[in-house]
Amino acid sequence: MKEECGVVGVVVQNNASTGTPTALQIYYALYALQHRGQESTGITIHDGLHCKSIKGMGLVPEVYVKKDLLELKGNVGIGHVRYSTTGHSKIENCQPLIVNYKSGTIAIAHNGNLANYSLLRDELELEGRIFITSSDTEVIAHLLVKELLRHDPVESISNVIKRLKGSYSLAILIDDQLYALRDPLGFKPLCVGKLDGGFIVASESVAIDTLNGTLIREVSPGELLVFKNDSFESHILVQEKYHAHCVFEYVYFARPDSIINGKLVYNVREKIGRELAREHPVKADSVSPVPDSGITSAIGYSYEANIKYSEGLMKNRYIGRTFILPGQAMRETAVRLKMNTISENIKDQRIVLIDDSIVRGTTSRRIIDMIRRAGAKEIHARIGSPPIIAPCYFGIDMGTRNELIAAHKTVAGVEAVINADSLGYLSIEGLVRAIGIEKENLCLACLTSEYPLDIPGEYCPRRQLKLNEFS
Amino acid sequence: MKEECGVVGVVVQNNASTGTPTALQIYYALYALQHRGQESTGITIHDGLHCKSIKGMGLVPEVYVKKDLLELKGNVGIGHVRYSTTGHSKIENCQPLIVNYKSGTIAIAHNGNLANYSLLRDELELEGRIFITSSDTEVIAHLLVKELLRHDPVESISNVIKRLKGSYSLAILIDDQLYALRDPLGFKPLCVGKLDGGFIVASESVAIDTLNGTLIREVSPGELLVFKNDSFESHILVQEKYHAHCVFEYVYFARPDSIINGKLVYNVREKIGRELAREHPVKADSVSPVPDSGITSAIGYSYEANIKYSEGLMKNRYIGRTFILPGQAMRETAVRLKMNTISENIKDQRIVLIDDSIVRGTTSRRIIDMIRRAGAKEIHARIGSPPIIAPCYFGIDMGTRNELIAAHKTVAGVEAVINADSLGYLSIEGLVRAIGIEKENLCLACLTSEYPLDIPGEYCPRRQLKLNEFS
Amino acid sequence: MKEECGVVGVVVQNNASTGTPTALQIYYALYALQHRGQESTGITIHDGLHCKSIKGMGLVPEVYVKKDLLELKGNVGIGHVRYSTTGHSKIENCQPLIVNYKSGTIAIAHNGNLANYSLLRDELELEGRIFITSSDTEVIAHLLVKELLRHDPVESISNVIKRLKGSYSLAILIDDQLYALRDPLGFKPLCVGKLDGGFIVASESVAIDTLNGTLIREVSPGELLVFKNDSFESHILVQEKYHAHCVFEYVYFARPDSIINGKLVYNVREKIGRELAREHPVKADSVSPVPDSGITSAIGYSYEANIKYSEGLMKNRYIGRTFILPGQAMRETAVRLKMNTISENIKDQRIVLIDDSIVRGTTSRRIIDMIRRAGAKEIHARIGSPPIIAPCYFGIDMGTRNELIAAHKTVAGVEAVINADSLGYLSIEGLVRAIGIEKENLCLACLTSEYPLDIPGEYCPRRQLKLNEFS
Amino acid sequence: MKEECGVVGVVVQNNASTGTPTALQIYYALYALQHRGQESTGITIHDGLHCKSIKGMGLVPEVYVKKDLLELKGNVGIGHVRYSTTGHSKIENCQPLIVNYKSGTIAIAHNGNLANYSLLRDELELEGRIFITSSDTEVIAHLLVKELLRHDPVESISNVIKRLKGSYSLAILIDDQLYALRDPLGFKPLCVGKLDGGFIVASESVAIDTLNGTLIREVSPGELLVFKNDSFESHILVQEKYHAHCVFEYVYFARPDSIINGKLVYNVREKIGRELAREHPVKADSVSPVPDSGITSAIGYSYEANIKYSEGLMKNRYIGRTFILPGQAMRETAVRLKMNTISENIKDQRIVLIDDSIVRGTTSRRIIDMIRRAGAKEIHARIGSPPIIAPCYFGIDMGTRNELIAAHKTVAGVEAVINADSLGYLSIEGLVRAIGIEKENLCLACLTSEYPLDIPGEYCPRRQLKLNEFS
Repeated sequence: MKEECGVVGVVVQNNASTGTPTALQIYYALYALQHRGQESTGITIHDGLHCKSIKGMGLVPEVYVKKDLLELKGNVGIGHVRYSTTGHSKIENCQPLIVNYKSGTIAIAHNGNLANYSLLRDELELEGRIFITSSDTEVIAHLLVKELLRHDPVESISNVIKRLKGSYSLAILIDDQLYALRDPLGFKPLCVGKLDGGFIVASESVAIDTLNGTLIREVSPGELLVFKNDSFESHILVQEKYHAHCVFEYVYFARPDSIINGKLVYNVREKIGRELAREHPVKADSVSPVPDSGITSAIGYSYEANIKYSEGLMKNRYIGRTFILPGQAMRETAVRLKMNTISENIKDQRIVLIDDSIVRGTTSRRIIDMIRRAGAKEIHARIGSPPIIAPCYFGIDMGTRNELIAAHKTVAGVEAVINADSLGYLSIEGLVRAIGIEKENLCLACLTSEYPLDIPGEYCPRRQLKLNEFS
Repeated sequence: MKEECGVVGVVVQNNASTGTPTALQIYYALYALQHRGQESTGITIHDGLHCKSIKGMGLVPEVYVKKDLLELKGNVGIGHVRYSTTGHSKIENCQPLIVNYKSGTIAIAHNGNLANYSLLRDELELEGRIFITSSDTEVIAHLLVKELLRHDPVESISNVIKRLKGSYSLAILIDDQLYALRDPLGFKPLCVGKLDGGFIVASESVAIDTLNGTLIREVSPGELLVFKNDSFESHILVQEKYHAHCVFEYVYFARPDSIINGKLVYNVREKIGRELAREHPVKADSVSPVPDSGITSAIGYSYEANIKYSEGLMKNRYIGRTFILPGQAMRETAVRLKMNTISENIKDQRIVLIDDSIVRGTTSRRIIDMIRRAGAKEIHARIGSPPIIAPCYFGIDMGTRNELIAAHKTVAGVEAVINADSLGYLSIEGLVRAIGIEKENLCLACLTSEYPLDIPGEYCPRRQLKLNEFS
Repeated sequence: MKEECGVVGVVVQNNASTGTPTALQIYYALYALQHRGQESTGITIHDGLHCKSIKGMGLVPEVYVKKDLLELKGNVGIGHVRYSTTGHSKIENCQPLIVNYKSGTIAIAHNGNLANYSLLRDELELEGRIFITSSDTEVIAHLLVKELLRHDPVESISNVIKRLKGSYSLAILIDDQLYALRDPLGFKPLCVGKLDGGFIVASESVAIDTLNGTLIREVSPGELLVFKNDSFESHILVQEKYHAHCVFEYVYFARPDSIINGKLVYNVREKIGRELAREHPVKADSVSPVPDSGITSAIGYSYEANIKYSEGLMKNRYIGRTFILPGQAMRETAVRLKMNTISENIKDQRIVLIDDSIVRGTTSRRIIDMIRRAGAKEIHARIGSPPIIAPCYFGIDMGTRNELIAAHKTVAGVEAVINADSLGYLSIEGLVRAIGIEKENLCLACLTSEYPLDIPGEYCPRRQLKLNEFS
Repeated sequence: MKEECGVVGVVVQNNASTGTPTALQIYYALYALQHRGQESTGITIHDGLHCKSIKGMGLVPEVYVKKDLLELKGNVGIGHVRYSTTGHSKIENCQPLIVNYKSGTIAIAHNGNLANYSLLRDELELEGRIFITSSDTEVIAHLLVKELLRHDPVESISNVIKRLKGSYSLAILIDDQLYALRDPLGFKPLCVGKLDGGFIVASESVAIDTLNGTLIREVSPGELLVFKNDSFESHILVQEKYHAHCVFEYVYFARPDSIINGKLVYNVREKIGRELAREHPVKADSVSPVPDSGITSAIGYSYEANIKYSEGLMKNRYIGRTFILPGQAMRETAVRLKMNTISENIKDQRIVLIDDSIVRGTTSRRIIDMIRRAGAKEIHARIGSPPIIAPCYFGIDMGTRNELIAAHKTVAGVEAVINADSLGYLSIEGLVRAIGIEKENLCLACLTSEYPLDIPGEYCPRRQLKLNEFS
């Protein structure tokens, strides 16, 4: 599974008082959100008259140079880190997306995915509109500009939201005015914090921590924030009965030190481990994580099961872009470059191996084979999420249904493929308990095949969003 | 004065037979047109299904890597080299501009400038359209897409042309179909050539020469070429009574080995020299050019005046981006880095110094000062173009009227500023004779203040283009 | 504390059989040793006739390009990753060092530091020799070449070793012959492994693991290995009564999955935690590491003390080169960019905080302040090494005696500076027990001020190395 | 033929007064000498205590960044631009070469080639010395350091010069003292100029011009200059009866605006054209140069022969590194990328084509073929130098004797190979007359096979340098 995107917006009343230029604050915040996207990044600052940007392919420290960053003067700006599938990895798609329209400039930083992107784009193309990027953010920009011709920004955004079906946490600049918007189902996280002399919105609370700010609260699903002098207005544009918070933010994506929907991710992961221990107990000598995402759950399992926690796998902290020649020996080398066994913690042991999820099963197989070669007596795989049986239409790159091993195989079948002595997936109920949010407010579509939104060809039990039926 | 842009389009029937991939042919053609733009460059190739591009800031050899270029497979493509004023020098503006619309993909490479860009953009923005680049090419794309919703490509382009006021030589890909279009007044050059197994359109004939192709003819003003199997169709979309070929292509921009509007640039420049000698004879010991653009005219002057041609200034072939500290000594160093005197060709001599034009006068002054310090007895400046008294709205960056020295000073005044012993500008009639095209078919607006198109606030004697009145 | 260097040497009998080119194997091995040096890296391959190299500043994935690496053909080669203090961070110092001499070419990759570098260099300079790099490796090259004029390689190396005082683990190519040498006191690690069809020497066993090789054994202190067809010769050039293995390889430098001097580093670190728990017990709610180096010891402490292990600090995995403006707020941001608190694991808790060592105390102070602000009730610092009171002359950049806080302050004093509720350093005996090697064979100089080698101005109780007295 | 190297040395008494930092002055001077080497460049500045350098592969504007250059503070420094054959094109060989020795630091910038490099290097290697670069400059450094152990700098350099056989113009820093040295035969140029508050030495006088300095005089063959406060000392170390100034500096290498050995290069080239016209008259319609090096001689020929000068070939000013696929069509494209015909100046004409020299004949053939295809009636090749029949051992990369077409073919044979209607080489006497220096003081070895120095296997009529016989 791959990460998705991170967004940031910062506005300060008086730059001079804080000492830190807005562009630099966004830069540090993006550093804290780097785990949400390593492919490209951009910062856009508005100085009251104009909008200036720095964008580039690569990591935050690769794209930004101090001198250039300090030249982005202004009190308000937004930023973005991006992950995308290879085909669309181009500089043109790098965000924030800046568009000029009748009355000025709009900049948009977007985390999420529009499920009705194709329909909206077709509709817009039928009007003769053109698309320069291949991202759904450009669709949002078109819709927003159409509204802004007739309405004020809040009403415009309110109208746009009715057309969008999918996930979107947005930081928007309309000229030098900062807005933050979270989709009505609240798929993706978005929170707001207080800075010295200003405010920050960000995908995760760690960005606020990094700037020594204070988390105020999360943006509510369907809520629009408009940032004013010394305050921000809240507009509840849509209020759904139920929400659809993505569970994989807890299982895998978010940083453990982030608070999402009121829950500290670290705590959820530890509880996942405890739930797993209760659901799938096994006699073993040690509990060992697949680093890094399995570490906290392994600690939880260890406490609950009262089995020793130990590190059987060590991750290479320095692994970057590498290249591999064809051949089996090379593929094994590729795995070993990333992870190595600590044989004394494995040899002759019965090991509970904690991983966050299984997508295709190939990586799990390679890791388990490596542990076996290091002399493990038994390997009991315990997975911190239920079987993934359906694709995600809301921004997580899990691959197609065809590629998902659990869409085609029973647990026993997966166990055989990954070569484990036993395999236990966390139950849906266990996951829901660990998260601590009622099931109705979570998106479990990839685990249940029941979608919170009407997706063509998929089952949507609620159909609660009757707003946009394009059939 | 700065260069503008160069465009290329290539289509070959069967790549295999020619041996040279289309992308590589465009690459070589762009090399030949590099003098028309050094800021950015791009190549777009269509492989029958998709369109792929390489774009980047910098010179042709800096942007393209062999491996990437060879991966741009396909039989048809377009290319671009670009110059622009600093403010808009961004990767987003790098051409070809690629837009996706209802029925497919359009790629546009544009040389020229729309005089009614702001009006058209305002109109399009009023419809709620958005603009991602700051180039007028995006306006053309919007207009074209609007037409393509209802009409076939030829009719669409025919309709678009009615809206455009200004200069444009275009190479266009609509999906995998190549079109070439030249504006009805024929401001900018565009020619078509035969390649082994295919065709090429290019801003200048040197691009055809470089590929060992044969110049077929120039695209006529108002003509659209549609490239078919083994042939191309011609559509005369607009036929104006008079044309408006830019005279500065001859004076300065184009390569001397190019044929433009049927005239070899080299010949025109030599004749400019001869006309200058007849109009402004002077007793002198030698005729010396300001290299490189004054060389050919200096040769012509020398023959006509029967005064020895000699090189008093030597240009540093290797000068690239450099940096200069503040101060008078440094500014002189900056001039000397680019050009040095050959004192034995200057000392105690009466020199006729041939330059192509005077824009602000500052460079001329520095060069003449340098020649004086080298011991010249007299310096008689002879300029291969008439005084520039009005701005260009059609793509040449001459600066504003304020900056043009001849807009505010008499010839005697300019002579004093540049510190010459005498100053002679070529007359308009002399320039027209040297070019060999009747005055009615040339754009002399910057020399006469009479514009061939209706420009707000400027005098347009003909007003022959009644098509687009947006008042 | 900063890392030092890593060396690799690979020879394969028949490249074709293994499928993986030697240069690529060295590349992967250097990836596994990247933690030992991130400043520059180089690979040198001998193809039987010539020696070719790729070197560059930066990380392994930044320096090597696949195409270039595959052009380094040959069956034998060496590689290096390097850390150095800023002043000498230049491409000239990048290793392997290649020197040409009378009979051919020598390439040297060196981990360590010659304590008598200045004396040797002075001596060589007095002979009129010149130095192009500022590394002590060039001194070794000079001495080796002097010997090679009169002796065979083994005798030459044997003679050179008599002149060297300090630490050195070396991979050497003399033409296409690979040698591996470890200094007589065995300061730095060096091990040898079996590959499919060949051999590898490397600073740490993880490099062997990465290539799916088998650790044969470590190179003994004072031993020279000469690699032959299908085998290697061992020459014990010097046999000291005692060795001086660096204890900080266990405490901090080496990867936990490496085996050094027969001890798995992971085990040593866990035992360090257990020893700490026994020596410095405290009533607390949780044990939390300073990531990453404190993790394993914290697990050990947790088991021994039966206090819950929990992660109170989370490290940003993506932190790279960053920039910081002056000011207190910015310095705090710099700390928070690297590490963040998980407040629910800290708030109102009594925390045992495990770190590997304290050098200057400034980082410890910032981390403890951050934990306090997150609401910790008590913070009990437990350090996995004894107080560092003396500088290292053997390759570890701990700074000068002046900079070492424990050289000037008592434990109570350090406790006050870092603002801990209590502070407990591991005792020397505890550290020795955790490592499991008798004290006589360890270098504890930075902890005891007693040096295993005669260092001018320092106390050397044994003076067992009488070989090189230059006084 | 390829260019060789350029050297610069600058010392100023008081930086503040001139306004321009020494490093920046060297940077501009190197810009002016860029034509002498485009492969790598370096600047070394001594600040009274230390020596700092910037070096890199590529052109002057590619290697130096303003910020870095301004950090090279100090009143004295040297610089270098370098060309070398591909095999040795590495950063290690980039000059100035900096070596540390017993008493300090030496930096050397070298233009030239030691004919006895191998002998000297063997001798030094026999003493056990090592070589890190593959340049002969390192040999000079070794010899100089050996002397400096016993003698003062002037005596040391005086002793070193006795060992060197070949060409060398050197700018040397011994600590912060600048020296300039030219070999006793004066193969390569070296001149000294006055700057505001200081002095400059440089390979060509254009470097002095660029800094608005004044050429004082050329350094004499065998002369050493030692720069003092407000003055420089001259030491005539060796005084040979005859000199051996390289004639190809006039024919091809040097900039036309440089004065070398008292002769303005421009004048020599024009006289070469006049001599050619007298020696090889022909009935023709125009005289046309192969640009750029043939331009001045073509002007001279035109005047002498009273045949019209016209430009039949146009050079692409922007050609940089390009890539070419295999195949005949592509090779022609490669020629056309660099040069194009101006057909109206060629068609049906009898053309005198002036080129500076013929090395292998392949380029000449391609150019003549291109002119023929453009419709020339007759092509009469006139070459501004005599046939090159022997290799150069003094720094010019003409290739081996095997590759030199005139070493194996008569003039008639060459004429056939290059496909000219007639071919006329300048005679040796004509060349000598054009240069205006008596034959005894020129190096004509590549034209006569008679070498001014004893080269093993070659004929040396004078053997006047009996100093170094190593046989």
